[in-house]
Order: sequence, then structure tokens, then C-alpha cells
Amino acid sequence: MIRRLCIIGVGLIGGSLARALREAGYVEEIVGSSRREEHLQEALDLGVIDRFDSDPARAVEGADMVFVAVPLGAMGKVFESIAGKLATGAVVTDGGSAKASVVRDVCTAVGDTPDWFVPGHPIAGTEQSGVAASFAGLYQGRRVILTPLEQTRPEATARVRAMWEAAGATVNEMSVEHHDEVLAATSHLPHMLAFALVESLARLSEQREIFEYAAGGFTDFTRIASSDPVMWRDICIANRDALLKMLERFNTDLETLHTAIDSRDEETLLRIFTEAKVARDAFSRPAEKSKD
Amino acid sequence: MIRRLCIIGVGLIGGSLARALREAGYVEEIVGSSRREEHLQEALDLGVIDRFDSDPARAVEGADMVFVAVPLGAMGKVFESIAGKLATGAVVTDGGSAKASVVRDVCTAVGDTPDWFVPGHPIAGTEQSGVAASFAGLYQGRRVILTPLEQTRPEATARVRAMWEAAGATVNEMSVEHHDEVLAATSHLPHMLAFALVESLARLSEQREIFEYAAGGFTDFTRIASSDPVMWRDICIANRDALLKMLERFNTDLETLHTAIDSRDEETLLRIFTEAKVARDAFSRPAEKSKD
Ligand SMILES: NC(=O)c1ccc[n+]([C@@H]2O[C@H](COP(=O)([O-])OP(=O)(O)OC[C@H]3O[C@@H](n4cnc5c(N)ncnc54)[C@H](OP(=O)(O)O)[C@@H]3O)[C@@H](O)[C@H]2O)c1
Ligand SMILES: NC(=O)c1ccc[n+]([C@@H]2O[C@H](COP(=O)([O-])OP(=O)(O)OC[C@H]3O[C@@H](n4cnc5c(N)ncnc54)[C@H](OP(=O)(O)O)[C@@H]3O)[C@@H](O)[C@H]2O)c1
Repeated sequence: MIRRLCIIGVGLIGGSLARALREAGYVEEIVGSSRREEHLQEALDLGVIDRFDSDPARAVEGADMVFVAVPLGAMGKVFESIAGKLATGAVVTDGGSAKASVVRDVCTAVGDTPDWFVPGHPIAGTEQSGVAASFAGLYQGRRVILTPLEQTRPEATARVRAMWEAAGATVNEMSVEHHDEVLAATSHLPHMLAFALVESLARLSEQREIFEYAAGGFTDFTRIASSDPVMWRDICIANRDALLKMLERFNTDLETLHTAIDSRDEETLLRIFTEAKVARDAFSRPAEKSKD
Repeated sequence: MIRRLCIIGVGLIGGSLARALREAGYVEEIVGSSRREEHLQEALDLGVIDRFDSDPARAVEGADMVFVAVPLGAMGKVFESIAGKLATGAVVTDGGSAKASVVRDVCTAVGDTPDWFVPGHPIAGTEQSGVAASFAGLYQGRRVILTPLEQTRPEATARVRAMWEAAGATVNEMSVEHHDEVLAATSHLPHMLAFALVESLARLSEQREIFEYAAGGFTDFTRIASSDPVMWRDICIANRDALLKMLERFNTDLETLHTAIDSRDEETLLRIFTEAKVARDAFSRPAEKSKD
């Protein structure tokens, strides 16, 4: 149970956690904070938060739990503002899509590795953003990854885990580095391919016509290219090293395919497509089930 | 109205056309043909065809319309078998995913460019294959592209158009070359990226775990990697030149993105992601609407 929850960044991710915890009766009071008053007012009007303060230092006052859900590029500033302003015993966690960069930002702001910070990442989202797109069911049946540090108090991790479970999620723990590699592979690289493909097609002269003949599979394939550009710019910067590694890996595999097509190597083509189909059919099932 | 329709290759594409035309009351008799008797027997048991003959030369006897829906790599042999065996006035069309290769195969088999052949391609399909996966509604509201040749009798094109409209589709005409370029961009290239991505991830040592953390977007993104490997091998061979051109174009664009990530070029990243989002949001709407 949380007495006072402070959410910094009341958008899709922050707003949905607020709604889910409220619905679960897991929180007494929710204080919101972000840059723009009109966004906070909107969150208040929607009943997502109980009050707000655009100064994060004042917003965290007396909160026993703080959830930071701003774009990765804004994390550093937020942590600078709240360092030293937290209530005794307060636990802070975040929802950023990469973890090493957030940990670096927190440590820089605090001047040390704090024992009250639990890095986190809900594997859930849509192509929408902003508080109006938030909904209580976003985390239902989805996974949340926590990457506690050596210094993190186990009690802090336990409280964050309980919070996410109250929101309907299943919680897993892993190292910061492993998180960033897994996400580079399963989320960040696919987004790069979708953005690059749509950008590539959009610059063809026949673009309007081309999109007209795009069949169902293409629509699904490129949906993720509708995601927020700022968020993805920040992810590229924050998870640069793991993403570059995956991109290079993918390039090698695409090059193999390219060469096989170029040299009409039917055997290699059939092998690659068969291996991919077998892997997709076998391993995608749990993901498909957990889709809402 | 078709009196006797011969379908060579009674799988997803051929079987669905048979079902749709039967449901529309647009055909009197449907004769099936393919390599394996057990597949033809299955089609007969399902009521998709009225009788069958595994010899295509005999199957086309007396048919006023012939639809060839075998993998692209099998087209040449089929046309060799039926050349000279067609009834007077019979029209032949196909459903192959690339068109230049099919036209080459027909011309080679006939020894000339026939006036009775109408190259076609329904922009519809699923990741399933075989007659058991076929259904009458597959073409409802979808597009079919016809690429008639200079030599094609306009009356032949009109009859094929009327057939597809009876099956619920909208028919467009374009040149063979344009078809192959448009499809390389909107279908063949995306499939290559999905196959290469899944293959790339499947070979990571942590593969099982990696697929577990794949969120909804990834599932949609890679669904097309479940498609039939033989069909895609054949498409790569058949539409090699247009596909290589698109792959090279995409590689250049992915390289630009790669460089921007590598050099932490926030401006370029934001520009690419914004352009892609705008294009996806604007041009995907008609495609999304036509999805079933
Ligand atoms: N969307 C997804 O699919 C997804 C999934 C998992 C994790 N995440 C992560 O969750 C975080 C939030 O994403 P989101 O999708 O919820 O984005 P969003 O809907 O755009 O919300 C972002 C929120 O942060 C606030 N904000 C932006 N810059 C700020 C700053 N400099 N200082 C204070 N507040 C600021 C915004 O309000 P103002 O404009 O009023 O400042 C808004 O309330 C990101 O770190 C993202 O990586 C996203
Ligand atoms: N699936 C799609 O999404 C899609 C969409 C548009 C167009 N297409 C095109 O449609 C065609 C058929 O695809 P499909 O998805 O319907 O495949 P499918 O379900 O596997 O059906 C292929 C059919 O062709 C027969 N066949 C295979 N090799 C043959 C041969 N050498 N001689 C005679 N018959 C043969 C098979 O029966 P036997 O095994 O008994 O020979 C089967 O009936 C392909 O050219 C493909 O490019 C597919």
C-alpha cells in the first residue's frame, strides 16, 4: 500500500500506473509533476492525479514512493531537482526504456549510488503518448523488469515489485547490462528497422501509390514506426552501445540474405526462411498470449 | 459467369478463389489439379472443388477459365503441361506474387506471347498455406493487380477482372515492371527484414529468454516471418532484380540511421523518426481500412 505516490511525467506510462493503482485501491494520494501546467491540469481533470506541482522538488515532498516516467533525455534534470528533497525512507523507481543511462543519471545527480533507487521498465506501451492515452489495464498480464543495483535496499526492490504486481504486472529481475541487451534486440532494433523502412518507402516518388498496395502484413510491420520520435531519439542515445551491437549483428545477417538473393542461392534462402519460421512459431507463442 | 473453372494449385490462394466464386454463384463446375492426390482429395472433401485430375493437361480440358496458383518456381512446368491443351477461347490467369518471371515462363512454354494469358496478383493472404486454410472471404475488399501485356486480348482481361470482382476484390491494372517494383517495396523487402531479424535473434544464445520479453509490437512486426519458406524462396528468385534494388535502397537508409546513432546525432535521429511517423500515420490509413 502506498500512502503518497509522486509521479513525475504523467503521460502514457506514468498516467497508466496512476490509474491502475487507483483502481486497485493501492494508493491513498497521487501527486503529479511535469513541465507543462496544461498537461497536469488535464491529468487532474481526468482524475488521474489528486493534485500537482510543476516543481518536482516540491512534488516529491512527503511521498513514500516516487515514479519517474519522463523521456530518457529528461531523467538527469529530474533527478538533480529531487536529490536531497526526498522524505526519509522514500523509494524512487522509473519506467525508462533503457537502464544503464538512467542509473548513470541518478548517480551523477546524487553524487553517489543511492540505496533508495530501483531501476525499472514496464514492457508495455502503445504508439500513443500523453495522459489522454493512458488506461488502467495497460500493465495487466504484462512484464516489468527491475534491475536493482548492488547498493539497492532489498526492501526498496520489494516495495516496487509489490506496486507493479498491484497494477497487474509480472515482475522479473535482471542486471542493468542484460536488460539493455535484451531490449536492444527485441524492441530497439525492430523499431529502427520499421522507422528506416517507412522512411525509405516514403521517399520513393510513387509513395502514395506504394502505400495503397501495402497489404495487411505491412500495416502490422510498420505500426511501431508511429511511435513518439522524441522517445526514440532518447532511446538511441541512451542505449547506443547495445543497439549498435545489435544493428551490426543484424547487418551481417541481412548481408548473408542479400548475397543469397544476389547469387540465386536457393538452398541458403530456404534454410534462412525455414529457421526463422521455426523460431517465430515456437518462441512467439508466449508473447502472443500476453498481448492484449 | 464461368462454366468450367480449372484451378491448378488448390492451396490458400487457389482454394479461396474457388470458395469465393462458388459462394457468389459465379461458377458452374470447378476442376482442381496439383501434384499430390491427397491434397486434391482433401479439397474435394471440403467441397472446394467438384473433381480433380493430377495431370494439368487433362484438368484444363474444356475449361473456359484457368487459374494457376502454384509456387512461382513451379509455374514454368505447369505452363509447359497445359500449352496446346487449352479449349478454344479459354482464358488463363495466375496468382503469383511476382509477374515478370511468370510472363517469361508462359512465353517460354508457348514459344510466343499468347493473347489468352492475363498475369494477376491478389494482394491478400495469410501466414497459413494449404487448402484447409482457404476461405471464401479472403479477397473481400482487397485489391487484385492485373498486368495485361500488349498482346493480351482486352476481352480476356475483362473476364479475369469480372471474376475477381465476383470474389469481392477491387481490380487495378499496371505494367509488369511497375507491379514488381511496388511489391518489392511493400511486401518482399518487409518480409526479408522480418525473416532476417527473427533469424538474427534466434541465433543469440539467450534466445528463449529474449523472445519472452518481446512486447506486442515485436509480435506484429515478426508475424510475417511465419510465412511459407518455399513461397518466399521462389519470390526471391523470381523478383530478384527489383528486390535487390529495394534492399540496397534500404541499406543506405539504415546506414544513415546507424551513423546517426553512432555519432549521437540527435537532430538527424529526430528528423528520421518524425518523417517516418508522419508518413506512416498519413499513408497507412487506406491500407488499415482495407484490412480484414
Ligand atoms: N510508450 C512506451 O511504449 C513506453 C514503454 C515503456 C517505457 N517507456 C518509457 O516511459 C517514459 C515515458 O514515456 P511515455 O510513453 O509515457 O511518454 P509521454 O506519454 O510522452 O509522457 C512523458 C511525460 O513526461 C513529461 N515530461 C517530458 N519532458 C519532461 C521534463 N523535461 N521534465 C519533466 N517532465 C517531462 C511530459 O509532460 P510535460 O510535457 O508536461 O513535461 C509527460 O507527462 C520514457 O522514459 C519511455 O522510455 C515508454
Ligand atoms: N500466401 C500468400 O500470402 C499469397 C498472396 C498472394 C499470392 N500468392 C501466390 O499464390 C501462389 C500460391 O500460394 P499459396 O499461398 O496458395 O500456396 P499453398 O497454399 O502452398 O498452395 C500451393 C498449391 O500449389 C500446389 N503445387 C505446388 N507445387 C506444384 C507443382 N510443382 N505442380 C502443381 N501444383 C503444385 C500445391 O499442391 P500439391 O502439394 O498437391 O502440389 C498447392 O495446392 C504462389 O505463387 C504465391 O506466390 C500467395
